[in-house]
Amino acid sequence: MISETFKAMLSGKSVIRELSEQAARMANADPAHPVEIFDYSLGNPSVPAPAVVNEKMIDLLRNEDPMLVHGYSPSLGIPSVKEKLAASLNRRFGMNYKGTDIFPTSGAAGALAHAFRLVTKPGDTILTFAPYFPEYGPYVIPTGCQFKTVPADTKNFQINFDALEEALTPDVMALLINTPNNPSGAMYSEETLRQLAEFLLLREKEFGHEIWLISDEPYREIVFDGKKAPYVSSFYARTLSCYSFSKSLSLPGERIGYLAVNPACGCSDMLVQMCGQISRGIGHNCPSSLMQLTVADTCDLTSDLSVYETNMNLLYDALTDLGLEIVRPGGTFYMMPKCPEADSNAFSRKALKYNLVLVPCDTFALPGYFRIAYCTDTEKVIRSLDAFRRFIKTEY
Amino acid sequence: MISETFKAMLSGKSVIRELSEQAARMANADPAHPVEIFDYSLGNPSVPAPAVVNEKMIDLLRNEDPMLVHGYSPSLGIPSVKEKLAASLNRRFGMNYKGTDIFPTSGAAGALAHAFRLVTKPGDTILTFAPYFPEYGPYVIPTGCQFKTVPADTKNFQINFDALEEALTPDVMALLINTPNNPSGAMYSEETLRQLAEFLLLREKEFGHEIWLISDEPYREIVFDGKKAPYVSSFYARTLSCYSFSKSLSLPGERIGYLAVNPACGCSDMLVQMCGQISRGIGHNCPSSLMQLTVADTCDLTSDLSVYETNMNLLYDALTDLGLEIVRPGGTFYMMPKCPEADSNAFSRKALKYNLVLVPCDTFALPGYFRIAYCTDTEKVIRSLDAFRRFIKTEY
Repeated sequence: MISETFKAMLSGKSVIRELSEQAARMANADPAHPVEIFDYSLGNPSVPAPAVVNEKMIDLLRNEDPMLVHGYSPSLGIPSVKEKLAASLNRRFGMNYKGTDIFPTSGAAGALAHAFRLVTKPGDTILTFAPYFPEYGPYVIPTGCQFKTVPADTKNFQINFDALEEALTPDVMALLINTPNNPSGAMYSEETLRQLAEFLLLREKEFGHEIWLISDEPYREIVFDGKKAPYVSSFYARTLSCYSFSKSLSLPGERIGYLAVNPACGCSDMLVQMCGQISRGIGHNCPSSLMQLTVADTCDLTSDLSVYETNMNLLYDALTDLGLEIVRPGGTFYMMPKCPEADSNAFSRKALKYNLVLVPCDTFALPGYFRIAYCTDTEKVIRSLDAFRRFIKTEY
Repeated sequence: MISETFKAMLSGKSVIRELSEQAARMANADPAHPVEIFDYSLGNPSVPAPAVVNEKMIDLLRNEDPMLVHGYSPSLGIPSVKEKLAASLNRRFGMNYKGTDIFPTSGAAGALAHAFRLVTKPGDTILTFAPYFPEYGPYVIPTGCQFKTVPADTKNFQINFDALEEALTPDVMALLINTPNNPSGAMYSEETLRQLAEFLLLREKEFGHEIWLISDEPYREIVFDGKKAPYVSSFYARTLSCYSFSKSLSLPGERIGYLAVNPACGCSDMLVQMCGQISRGIGHNCPSSLMQLTVADTCDLTSDLSVYETNMNLLYDALTDLGLEIVRPGGTFYMMPKCPEADSNAFSRKALKYNLVLVPCDTFALPGYFRIAYCTDTEKVIRSLDAFRRFIKTEY
């Protein structure tokens, strides 16, 4: 019988995708008079992968044994690849990973699917902070865990520790964080992470069980103002770092990332071996051998990410000039201003009249805000500023 | 807390992998005197991908927009790719697929993970036939379904319909078949498939619910004696065909395949859309965009698969001459002779003394048989024949 569970999910439409489709329809409504639509809905990298990525791939395809390049990866990933990924993390973040602490995955989504199952059982609770990436719900639900959220710290999108203290009950086995953050663009400070680690250790003692930190960090390399993102795992031993090369190397379609288990947790070898077991049950297996071999040699590089910072500054300055309240992003290619009216859906609908596609943050569990995904051409951002001005000045 | 379920799975070792590791140790035991080990344990393609696959990949990397080649695939797969895959199936098997009936997956394992979840709920039963690929158990268990088996038809490894009649109880929602078969090499005849379809339709009426046929067919293109594998889905409308390019194009490491839903089932569009929902919960997303684009243009080709038939004939003739009972394979790169003693583990241990690595079929739910994976060089197969002769003549 056809699954009622997954059938029922078909009616839940993605607001982001619907807006993006509406933008495409608006642009093509009258082919004789094409309209420029400023589509700030989708979080797709707008800069190509560094040339060296394609060169590495072509080199592997031309010069390596095809039985190696296209052959089965061992179920825990290719050992030489794991060692290079570990060495890169150690070099850049002062960590102490061995290759056996790394489990290559199909992007961060694949890493999260393993992380959740590693440290929970059905009935446990996974806690995250609003605002959050709306896929987290559908990612967690099939694990049989409860998915709960801590209210946002809207002052600066760090952590509201009072709210966390209330929300972190004994049924919570894992805390899911995302820094730099989609949708807010906020980056947790060292102080925030230190305080979080101290708090988790206290609660572990109090509850008499481990609490794991699952750190979703695909935006780790997109950081502004010449800063570097504090490396979450260096603050808390029981951290599962879920990484993707989708954003840093602009390879979202290649589905390549990894789960890195902090060896300081004392059981990283076992956890990575357990990932191999989890994979069997969810049809994951390993990511592409070719992509594993490629990122092993390009993991210290990034695409030219400077466009995101340029766009952020243009939008931040223009929108704050218009009187919008915005926590200035520390990284990513998102920002999340407060709407000048309480109903963010109404705000978003009005924006469409000015050819601006802005996502209401109800979908990120923070009504009253909207998200701008500014992964787009800077010239287009500049042209959009006038639309923003007309929109805000006319409607508010 | 660390998952007890997946921790417990660590103690269950793969007999095949252990044998393969033992083979490697034997070969390297004395570096001064290397020994030739005839490792027939692993089912890895032994011929490279056709040159045109790498050429296509290099062409895409050199000449296509990197934002397309490395960009996110739509969650149901790249439409142009789906249309080409459908057209290929229609051309070759007289089917009537549209692109929207095809869901690209990370190999057949990814396709099976979706197929199981599409047509069952926890507590239902998925039925398969002995002998079967030992990963089926770990694939099914996390869906919450029962996994049951029908005893083998050891006469010719078609279907024992008397046994099926007994095993197909009202709790069975899906029947999982694998033709051509790993480990037996048998290929279901048209007559078998016709009889199976008739039987399923009868039982559907009797039980008042649908019974889905999940067809795992990664060996569909490796068929001997100039024949073509009957296309399972053409016999039964409610068929979910799970395909992988791992064997036909020798791309096991690239994790590329698809799920094809027969449109005659009447709800193929919906089922493919449901796959998009299932994906979210198991961390699957889409397979690599580059690989989707590559197989779209190479799906009518295969590697040079003739070596498998050459090897099969050499081994079949030599082993039957030695008095072993074997059902002659119709395809794949496996065969499954009967052991000349009841204890197939003892048989396999004795074979090691003659440098022959043979997998006892207890692991495939058919004790008393052993599997030969003859995906290897023909010259090596020829050299192994003398070892087989000495082994069988000395020990039996």
